[in-house]
Amino acid sequence: MGGEENDMEIEGGMGMGMGRGRSGASSSSSSSSLREPLLLSKRINNTSQLAIVGANVCPIESLDYEIIENDLFKQDWRSRTKTEIFQYIFLKWTLALLIGLSTGLVALFNNIAVENIAGFKLLLTNNLMLKDKYYQAFGAYAGCNMVLAIAASVLCAYIAPAAAGSGIPEVKAYLNGIDAHSILAPSTLFVKIFGSIFGVAAGFVVGKEGPMVHTGACVASLLGQGGSRKYRLTWKWLRYFKNDRDRRDLITCGAAAGVAAAFRAPVGGVLFALEEAASWWRSALLWRTFFTTAVVAVVLRVSMVFCRSGKCGLFGEGGLIMFDVNSAKPTYSIPDLLAVIFLGVIGGIFGSLYNYLVDKVLRTYGIINKRDPSLKVILAMTISFLTSCCSYGLPWLSQCIPCPTNLGDQCPTVGRSGNYKNFQCPPNHYNDLASLFMTTNDDAIRNLFSSASDKEFHLSTLIVFFAAIYFLGIITYGIAVPSGLFIPVILAGASYGRLLGILLGSLSDLDAGLFALLGAASFLGGTMRMTVSLCVILLELTNDLLMLPLVMLVLLISKTVADCFNKGVYDQIVKMKGLPFMEAHAEPYMRHLVASDVVSGPLVTFSGVEKVGTILHALKITRHNGFPVIDEPPFSDAPELCGLVLRSHLLVLLKGKKFTRQRVMTGSEMMKRFNAHDFAKAGSGKGIKLEDLDMKEEEMEMYVDLHPITNSSPYTVVETMSLAKAALLFREVGLRHLLVVPKTPGRPPIVGILTRHDFMPEHILGLYPHFHPHK
Amino acid sequence: MGGEENDMEIEGGMGMGMGRGRSGASSSSSSSSLREPLLLSKRINNTSQLAIVGANVCPIESLDYEIIENDLFKQDWRSRTKTEIFQYIFLKWTLALLIGLSTGLVALFNNIAVENIAGFKLLLTNNLMLKDKYYQAFGAYAGCNMVLAIAASVLCAYIAPAAAGSGIPEVKAYLNGIDAHSILAPSTLFVKIFGSIFGVAAGFVVGKEGPMVHTGACVASLLGQGGSRKYRLTWKWLRYFKNDRDRRDLITCGAAAGVAAAFRAPVGGVLFALEEAASWWRSALLWRTFFTTAVVAVVLRVSMVFCRSGKCGLFGEGGLIMFDVNSAKPTYSIPDLLAVIFLGVIGGIFGSLYNYLVDKVLRTYGIINKRDPSLKVILAMTISFLTSCCSYGLPWLSQCIPCPTNLGDQCPTVGRSGNYKNFQCPPNHYNDLASLFMTTNDDAIRNLFSSASDKEFHLSTLIVFFAAIYFLGIITYGIAVPSGLFIPVILAGASYGRLLGILLGSLSDLDAGLFALLGAASFLGGTMRMTVSLCVILLELTNDLLMLPLVMLVLLISKTVADCFNKGVYDQIVKMKGLPFMEAHAEPYMRHLVASDVVSGPLVTFSGVEKVGTILHALKITRHNGFPVIDEPPFSDAPELCGLVLRSHLLVLLKGKKFTRQRVMTGSEMMKRFNAHDFAKAGSGKGIKLEDLDMKEEEMEMYVDLHPITNSSPYTVVETMSLAKAALLFREVGLRHLLVVPKTPGRPPIVGILTRHDFMPEHILGLYPHFHPHK
Repeated sequence: MGGEENDMEIEGGMGMGMGRGRSGASSSSSSSSLREPLLLSKRINNTSQLAIVGANVCPIESLDYEIIENDLFKQDWRSRTKTEIFQYIFLKWTLALLIGLSTGLVALFNNIAVENIAGFKLLLTNNLMLKDKYYQAFGAYAGCNMVLAIAASVLCAYIAPAAAGSGIPEVKAYLNGIDAHSILAPSTLFVKIFGSIFGVAAGFVVGKEGPMVHTGACVASLLGQGGSRKYRLTWKWLRYFKNDRDRRDLITCGAAAGVAAAFRAPVGGVLFALEEAASWWRSALLWRTFFTTAVVAVVLRVSMVFCRSGKCGLFGEGGLIMFDVNSAKPTYSIPDLLAVIFLGVIGGIFGSLYNYLVDKVLRTYGIINKRDPSLKVILAMTISFLTSCCSYGLPWLSQCIPCPTNLGDQCPTVGRSGNYKNFQCPPNHYNDLASLFMTTNDDAIRNLFSSASDKEFHLSTLIVFFAAIYFLGIITYGIAVPSGLFIPVILAGASYGRLLGILLGSLSDLDAGLFALLGAASFLGGTMRMTVSLCVILLELTNDLLMLPLVMLVLLISKTVADCFNKGVYDQIVKMKGLPFMEAHAEPYMRHLVASDVVSGPLVTFSGVEKVGTILHALKITRHNGFPVIDEPPFSDAPELCGLVLRSHLLVLLKGKKFTRQRVMTGSEMMKRFNAHDFAKAGSGKGIKLEDLDMKEEEMEMYVDLHPITNSSPYTVVETMSLAKAALLFREVGLRHLLVVPKTPGRPPIVGILTRHDFMPEHILGLYPHFHPHK
Repeated sequence: MGGEENDMEIEGGMGMGMGRGRSGASSSSSSSSLREPLLLSKRINNTSQLAIVGANVCPIESLDYEIIENDLFKQDWRSRTKTEIFQYIFLKWTLALLIGLSTGLVALFNNIAVENIAGFKLLLTNNLMLKDKYYQAFGAYAGCNMVLAIAASVLCAYIAPAAAGSGIPEVKAYLNGIDAHSILAPSTLFVKIFGSIFGVAAGFVVGKEGPMVHTGACVASLLGQGGSRKYRLTWKWLRYFKNDRDRRDLITCGAAAGVAAAFRAPVGGVLFALEEAASWWRSALLWRTFFTTAVVAVVLRVSMVFCRSGKCGLFGEGGLIMFDVNSAKPTYSIPDLLAVIFLGVIGGIFGSLYNYLVDKVLRTYGIINKRDPSLKVILAMTISFLTSCCSYGLPWLSQCIPCPTNLGDQCPTVGRSGNYKNFQCPPNHYNDLASLFMTTNDDAIRNLFSSASDKEFHLSTLIVFFAAIYFLGIITYGIAVPSGLFIPVILAGASYGRLLGILLGSLSDLDAGLFALLGAASFLGGTMRMTVSLCVILLELTNDLLMLPLVMLVLLISKTVADCFNKGVYDQIVKMKGLPFMEAHAEPYMRHLVASDVVSGPLVTFSGVEKVGTILHALKITRHNGFPVIDEPPFSDAPELCGLVLRSHLLVLLKGKKFTRQRVMTGSEMMKRFNAHDFAKAGSGKGIKLEDLDMKEEEMEMYVDLHPITNSSPYTVVETMSLAKAALLFREVGLRHLLVVPKTPGRPPIVGILTRHDFMPEHILGLYPHFHPHK
């Protein structure tokens, strides 16, 4: 939060301060090509970088979806043969296939591991309980949980802090063009997979669905990079994917595959990627994403058949989440609808309250987590102990219920998942609260959704369970463990729905399992604010299309109600983490401003043929990522804007050391020495660093021709362009730098550069505090 | 096709010819603000306007999704109160509700009418058949068909030619920004509804699904206009929707509602709008569309309950399309998968062949239809007679089959829909070919999909039916009748699938009904090339999620195979109609061109304060829709670009007659006289016409200040901007005019204007024939 942590990158050369009148004079008088190198700390434009919960504060880079048209790249396109184009298309689909395959297999591994670890733990506890060794049982239960919790949080705290939390906000931000540090790194993937397994197996009220989305995105990113350039393990063909655009598409596929794998919902996965994750979308991508999720579906189906034969240990039929509420009758009357509407309204309120509380808890934890990694582990241990106490302790409040007589199912169920847990009860009795607490989260949801057991759960049981899960869910998210939000919300929602179903029993004839499903829908709508994708995911989960109108109704109502209070939980987390997310629409106050009103900071420009020392100096004293290139006499009649050159390209160019003693254009010669591949975006590493360059004194006085690497078609706006329309251009085309050019002749050909940060409400409202944020 | 029919609008002032070098000299020497008014016929830039099949060749306008920021509109935003913003949001949702409600009711009306008319016709025929009056039966059958066909085609040919065909290509083009004449007019809506009812009832091999999409779009457009301004029936609140952006959103909702109503597939409707119809999309719209389709689902559900009590005549349970293949078992083995893959490949080939033949037939019919409306009617009559002959004649080829004994169902079914039609057979026998031909298309599909009747259809029956339907479907689309493509393709695909199921019976154990479903999927994938939306629509139709992986697989395969041969059928029709559709991606050769390479034609600009006569003259001799406004001394130091003024706004301004004798700025005064509402986009009428203006001689010498209506923030590109990137900007932001500004100082401040037509491949390849279309 302090000045030192302001690690946000600065995107380009900035405009000439605030005064439009002043800018003409101040810059035309300066003849040096490196203009006004003010101190960095003077820059106003820094979005407050709140501590990232469960992760270190890290540098944030923007991604660049603009087509860079410099001479070198153009030459590369022209020389591309038909074979190469075919290779590209073939690889695109192969990668989609591989992403689907890997994500499916990872999901399978995850599920098998969780079921086996958690199953072992529960069996152990159960066996001790059967022998009336209640204290030992608690010890074993809490101990197992603690060990697993420590394992998960140590991985997260020390190896990959970016793996903590859901990961969906980070993926969403990435697909919006924000590259937070190591968010898709191999270490993050590793920790996400194992941390999630340990975390879920530890009995935390967390899901494996959010982490699965992040995992899918990481897998896609890794596959797209095709190994590491550092270790020379790179596959030449994958050079086509070494740019932000193709990588974005891959990661969109990965996120969709993650949802598809988590819920076994291929269509839901595509819709999730579309509605929640992606900021840019096109029809062609829809098809590729769909292909990926289809592969996931096939992988899961094949492996389920394989596992059904008992080769996967305790992982049985119920392992992969899929709830059947088939027996619910699909007819409903007006009172039923009223009950459903009521359920939706209350669900929306609880959902937005959930968001509010999660935000508060995250901010509190942020302060703790920032201090030291060991504190993160201690926090996770505390929550683990609390969870164990709740899970083991609360069922004692519940009375033993005699097993129903006319039951096809086993009662009490011992040694496997099922609705009837024995716990401390005598034979032929079951403890309904234990049936929810002393099982995996997936099984608890399945129990709540089951309609065969209409009278199975007492009212008091559901109240206790709902209250416990609601608050455990809130305080668990934010600890240093990969933790999805779907499952806690579905659990709380399902118990709420079933509870309301009992309370409204006199009004409505709907099935208790259906009420649980609708309750879950209302909570999901209230927290996540998705509509179509949630609806399809729920349908694919429950495999019953006839409930579609009711689910739609509940989702619409709860989202509408919750939207009155606050934003969706993922948007909220993105905002809290200080990620500069570009919204799809411009804020109303932007209509009253023009582009030049918000450009700020010193503008650093280069000549078309520039002195090496000047470039190196500029790269050192600024952290701009883009520099305008201006052609000046004798290369042109008057100063004119040649284009934009990127820091990463400059570094490669300087490393190549193709300099001349004279100030002459050497473009054609350089085109032979370099090829476009040299300038491709680096993988997870950041490519060449400034410190890697080793310049001799005499080289500093030499010249280098920037034309071949200058993007000669940058998008520009006139300085009097409305800021709202500039923001629209920036967002829709997916830019990183937007050049602002002067309107009147006789001034230097560039006024400033707009970057993502210049469009952030914090920046603009900081400059113009009298604007109302929403008017 | 001659020069006279070249009615394509010309969007703006055009550039200074080809030579960039020349432009500086030629325009700086001309001091008149009206520059180089060349003859219109000299303009190269005209996309060839092929005859629109079943509709008159008509003027095409572009829609404008740009936010117009002129002083008048800005004033309007500033003065907007919170109440007005609330009104806007409230209206948006009310309109969505109304669109859903109306589309649902129209769909219901359509279904009830079709079922009753066709049911009456079939009953009449059946009764005559039972009395062995075979010739009279044919007479009655063919006569009814003929009368209905004449009714449908007369409506289409004489009242609203735009209502012919599917309508989906037109809606798709509209949502891409192309406003073909009267495509959403009230008369089109009327003809679409009744023409579709008559056409489907006439036994044509056409569907009501495509027309339903068009109907939904028309309903949305009409509701958004809120009555007619001409008849003073306009609702003041709806002024917020008098712009192309809000109207686009409404029509997207309408298209989705149409699909939802046609297939009772709310999620499928949303996805269809997203994947096939819309060119621009955002998350907020997803939600609104979803709401609309949810309303449709509720309307249909309620009305089905109502109709089940027998109040809707012959419209029974089966009226609204919904096929159950529930009994199919969801397990499959490797040979099954191989069979399914084979089915997909062949289906893809048949699908692309379908597209090819439809295109050829449409072009042939286009020549006939262009001559005279009466020829359209005669063509429709011919096809109707042919269809009647096939439907009535072909079943005679089939042998009578004894009814299966252990059947819960009635056999033969008399007087209602069912699998077993008696036709000419003795009692307790049925004619399987008649069961497919002598029924409505919906019932035929249901019969093919039904799995209870595994052995019901003979191989020869299916071959005859498939061949007949495939070719009838092809020759029927293109006649002057509202005709959807979904049903013919599903019918042909289902019979193909069932046929292949019998042939592959030894290889695969899959159910015949499931094979029919997969065959339908493969044909749909092969012709329409949608994936996710078709998949969801099919799932919602059949109400069985467990077939999802198989359906996905078939769709992916058939689309991939078909994509090797040609484009999707809707894209093909859009292209054939000569609609200037902007693709989402730029063509490769555009990377080798810059913006100024394609600007063409005379550039007409105005001064900030311009003489009325000059404006009127320019409006008369050109058909440009946008004119750059240039501020010149004394209003500025040097000529500078002030912005862009639209033809429609100029006409309103001139009509207002607020002129001055002196050349002075009167902006602030005019702002009081006009309000933004006066300049809102007209509804279905084209607003004020040039002929409506009645200028006196003295007024022609007066001046008018254009500043208040000049869009002062037009999007601009520098003349050296790559054409590919200019196209991307144009498409992503949804522009109508893109201004090209000079790069070097000392030249006039504008080089030319790019419009939609300048990005069309025909135009560019016409200018630069040496470029390869795809390289």
